[in-house]
Amino acid sequence: MQVLVLYHSRSGNTKLLAQAVAEGARQVEGVDVLVRSTEDITIDEFKESHAVIAGSPVYYGGPAAEIKKVFDNFIKVRKHMEGKVGAAFATSAHHTGGKETTMIAILQAMLIYGMIVLGDPLEVGGHYGVACAGTPDEHTQEAARKLGARVAATAKKLLG
Amino acid sequence: MQVLVLYHSRSGNTKLLAQAVAEGARQVEGVDVLVRSTEDITIDEFKESHAVIAGSPVYYGGPAAEIKKVFDNFIKVRKHMEGKVGAAFATSAHHTGGKETTMIAILQAMLIYGMIVLGDPLEVGGHYGVACAGTPDEHTQEAARKLGARVAATAKKLLG
Amino acid sequence: MQVLVLYHSRSGNTKLLAQAVAEGARQVEGVDVLVRSTEDITIDEFKESHAVIAGSPVYYGGPAAEIKKVFDNFIKVRKHMEGKVGAAFATSAHHTGGKETTMIAILQAMLIYGMIVLGDPLEVGGHYGVACAGTPDEHTQEAARKLGARVAATAKKLLG
Amino acid sequence: MQVLVLYHSRSGNTKLLAQAVAEGARQVEGVDVLVRSTEDITIDEFKESHAVIAGSPVYYGGPAAEIKKVFDNFIKVRKHMEGKVGAAFATSAHHTGGKETTMIAILQAMLIYGMIVLGDPLEVGGHYGVACAGTPDEHTQEAARKLGARVAATAKKLLG
Repeated sequence: MQVLVLYHSRSGNTKLLAQAVAEGARQVEGVDVLVRSTEDITIDEFKESHAVIAGSPVYYGGPAAEIKKVFDNFIKVRKHMEGKVGAAFATSAHHTGGKETTMIAILQAMLIYGMIVLGDPLEVGGHYGVACAGTPDEHTQEAARKLGARVAATAKKLLG
Repeated sequence: MQVLVLYHSRSGNTKLLAQAVAEGARQVEGVDVLVRSTEDITIDEFKESHAVIAGSPVYYGGPAAEIKKVFDNFIKVRKHMEGKVGAAFATSAHHTGGKETTMIAILQAMLIYGMIVLGDPLEVGGHYGVACAGTPDEHTQEAARKLGARVAATAKKLLG
Repeated sequence: MQVLVLYHSRSGNTKLLAQAVAEGARQVEGVDVLVRSTEDITIDEFKESHAVIAGSPVYYGGPAAEIKKVFDNFIKVRKHMEGKVGAAFATSAHHTGGKETTMIAILQAMLIYGMIVLGDPLEVGGHYGVACAGTPDEHTQEAARKLGARVAATAKKLLG
Repeated sequence: MQVLVLYHSRSGNTKLLAQAVAEGARQVEGVDVLVRSTEDITIDEFKESHAVIAGSPVYYGGPAAEIKKVFDNFIKVRKHMEGKVGAAFATSAHHTGGKETTMIAILQAMLIYGMIVLGDPLEVGGHYGVACAGTPDEHTQEAARKLGARVAATAKKLLG
């Protein structure tokens, strides 16, 4: 059972959040976690993952082009992703937004890949995923860990 | 294991699609299917369902107010819906659209309820769910049956 | 030149924001401002407005059913709204979101009405419109006044 | 008064639609039209345009990474785009969708740039912009011409 945490990060904030998501996923027994930036990810690593949690900084209300490029380019393995589990996270420079539409855009791509997606119920920290403005504080990192664990547990139940 | 097919229909098109979704869900062994219009649904029926597949005609790019009202009003049972399975379908009067944003709006409400949602991979008939313009033809009804079966099977695996 | 500020409010937060938007619109010379709740608005008031700024509390990631019902029900005057100006605002109970997707849903309805829509550039206070969690503070109210003024000035230029 | 038609095209379908949009914009007196692919556009051409109509093929429910990259990279001239006019168009390989969410993603980026955006009222051909599956037929091209003309006329009124 392999969970991929995929991210793009320029300032380091999204990378930090990716690491917290990965920590959470690792807490689920029998789950291997792969943390990959958009530069490093290979199509085979993507294809062999049972769950993908993808995070991006918010650029103009959507994911960074680098994140979009991964989904655009990996079209050949779409059939392999059907029924797998997906989720999203995002960081923004300002409080003013774009985080929701960025996470929804990631979930939309996953739905079209045929994936089953989940968000972040209110008591954990967000809505469509885990998000924050600026550097993720401990509260946000805890929400990220919970998201990672929730995705890993869901993948195990569905595909284990 | 109870699957709720919730719909609002004025012309009868969305009701027809709801019935096809229900047929598909019934094909999965051990699954009870409830078909309810927005006028008939009770909060207990909603709360006791393990999956909800909600459909709406497209009004101005979003679900009918009647569908939204159900999600708005059933806020008290939100905790009960966490981890349950959701999906969407839509019908529009014209080819020109609003179906995608209507289904995404339904999925967003479900994600905030804490539900795990799925769409409709390309080969079945749509993207974010099953949708058509006008009266659903046999092809669309078949896609709706597949969506119903896919949701029921997913709910069984996750919650059975 | 008539600008309509349309809102639904249960707690009073969205009403407060509506009043700030209205104040801003009134600052533009030659502009009459109508402030109406979803209970009070008539189809003639809607139809005769040159701009509509609509605000809603966030319920499950979208506008309240009451706001949606106005757009759904006023379909008969759609032709009259083409080329008019629209904008959105939103309030949420928690910080965790739904504000963006709520404002986008309102803008989508306006686009389908054929309206020309505008958001809120970063330096003013938001993105897709003006939004806040809880009671709008002075900073948010100032952003709301600027949005009102910007919409009124745009309507005057386009339709005056 | 300069209108930019920006597109990315692999198969040629989006380019064809871009040319129809440009034709329509050229019909408005006093308007210069620039047609640029995502490879050719310069930041100065973007900055000096009074309106931008951007089109993309649909990849996984959103604009191609190449289109997103232009908006991501041109962040330095954001202040120059405030109050300018924007619109979107899209082409997809299949009928099954993603066109709406692709156009909304483009409009969201424009709103964050502070632009005033418009869609395509029902009688012209679409909703959030002009879109088609496969090669644009004459009906779609006519809708594209009308969108181009409508954007150019709006820019002239607002900024002329």
